[in-house]
Amino acid sequence: MVDRKHAVYTQVNNVVGTMNVLYAIAEIDPEIHLVKLGTMGAYGTPNIDIEEGWIEIEHKGRKDRVLYPKRPGSYYHLSKVHDSHNIEFACRIWGIRATDLNQGVVYGQQTPETARDDRLATRYDYDAVFGTVLNRFVIQSVLGEPLMIYGNGSQVRGIIEIRDTVRCLQLACENPADRGEFRVFNQMTQSLSITQMAATIARVSPEKVTIEHLANPRVEEEGHHYNVVHSGMVELGLEPHLLSDTLIESLFEITKRFAHRVRREAMIPTIDWRRASSLIGL
Amino acid sequence: MVDRKHAVYTQVNNVVGTMNVLYAIAEIDPEIHLVKLGTMGAYGTPNIDIEEGWIEIEHKGRKDRVLYPKRPGSYYHLSKVHDSHNIEFACRIWGIRATDLNQGVVYGQQTPETARDDRLATRYDYDAVFGTVLNRFVIQSVLGEPLMIYGNGSQVRGIIEIRDTVRCLQLACENPADRGEFRVFNQMTQSLSITQMAATIARVSPEKVTIEHLANPRVEEEGHHYNVVHSGMVELGLEPHLLSDTLIESLFEITKRFAHRVRREAMIPTIDWRRASSLIGL
Repeated sequence: MVDRKHAVYTQVNNVVGTMNVLYAIAEIDPEIHLVKLGTMGAYGTPNIDIEEGWIEIEHKGRKDRVLYPKRPGSYYHLSKVHDSHNIEFACRIWGIRATDLNQGVVYGQQTPETARDDRLATRYDYDAVFGTVLNRFVIQSVLGEPLMIYGNGSQVRGIIEIRDTVRCLQLACENPADRGEFRVFNQMTQSLSITQMAATIARVSPEKVTIEHLANPRVEEEGHHYNVVHSGMVELGLEPHLLSDTLIESLFEITKRFAHRVRREAMIPTIDWRRASSLIGL
Repeated sequence: MVDRKHAVYTQVNNVVGTMNVLYAIAEIDPEIHLVKLGTMGAYGTPNIDIEEGWIEIEHKGRKDRVLYPKRPGSYYHLSKVHDSHNIEFACRIWGIRATDLNQGVVYGQQTPETARDDRLATRYDYDAVFGTVLNRFVIQSVLGEPLMIYGNGSQVRGIIEIRDTVRCLQLACENPADRGEFRVFNQMTQSLSITQMAATIARVSPEKVTIEHLANPRVEEEGHHYNVVHSGMVELGLEPHLLSDTLIESLFEITKRFAHRVRREAMIPTIDWRRASSLIGL
């Protein structure tokens, strides 16, 4: 959403990368199972429940199972929609196996594996472009800054803890899709509004936390319907870790340890969704 | 559908071209009305009626108006699906005006304007890649060759006469979409099966015509449901020319005049949809 050049780069990078992998699978061995990481953001915020990739609809007395109609909120998320359409087609014509994972907003910083050594630490994105909102709230509370909410905070998003999201990838790989199947999972474990996320951080934070609202720089609905089916992964064996005080406390510890490295300016949103070229103030 | 290189080129060319135009409109003047030519092929052959770009659905007791779910039959048609998603998003965030035209299979070779001078003649594609089936049938009947049907011929497609398709473009330009509106028309005037098209040509052809069936090189459904809403253009003023003997007779005349230029080998399908790289016999 920065400008034309970034939008074109993002779409070409994702779409061409995925197409290359699809052709490689078809040419090398259609038995290969593609596990593709997408995002819950691809759905947008429809006024009906969000199903796992497909939906049965009845229209004028006839029925069909169709791809779930998606209306996302950025050119990045659109590139994932394009990928899904291309993958479903490859399953249909070449009979390849594919699992499309719509990952929710990931929070948390470590898994039992990465906790063994600092050199295995994952990225912890908190900035206004790549960062996720829960990560940013934790940083802001540790720095004693207000938690910044875009708009009124009634926007609801699906979230997932980092150990769960890794477990989902493992489960998808260990239980491949059938030949010709385009299988979709909503890889998230619970839905929370931005206000609920901020309240959770504020409750657990050792420091006193205030909350501020910014004019929303994005074009997104507030006060929308959001009810997501995400039972597929549980059926494969996922045991979700829901957002808990314990988990947030461990995040505070890690964040405090590295708080001296935080680039505060990176948390200020500089991109205005309403403008085609929008590096605010740059 | 030739190979990876062609598929990537096609998607990048269409998607990036459209994105560039969207950004240009947003940056220059969002009052500009985008009229974008897509194709009926983007829908595929769903088991429910095909609406004009949007569909009202009820799901688990809730309602929404969503983008019509599309499942097309080639990477080219997928690029048009990607374009439509990107355009709808631009309408939503920048408030631009867009009309997305899903054109059916065009037949005919001239309009009153192009008939005035040979130098204004349009292309007449009859080959296995860019050609359309009615054009090819006319050529084959003029050459005294059998009309080649892929598969059993029960595939139904939406068709439109060349004067009507030009008139639709004019009507779209003269009646712009509203600010922020993503407006979709199904630019076709009637539905016919491939068998019906072949029978029509055979009936009118001055030469005796035989019909042959080839193993279908494409992956497409035969014997499918196909009922398309295409009332939007008629409401704007389109008066359709339906496929008639008179029109086909005029096509025979033109085709005969240039029959010496026909490249017969270009009509043989060389691309196998089931293979990732498929220049049959090349």
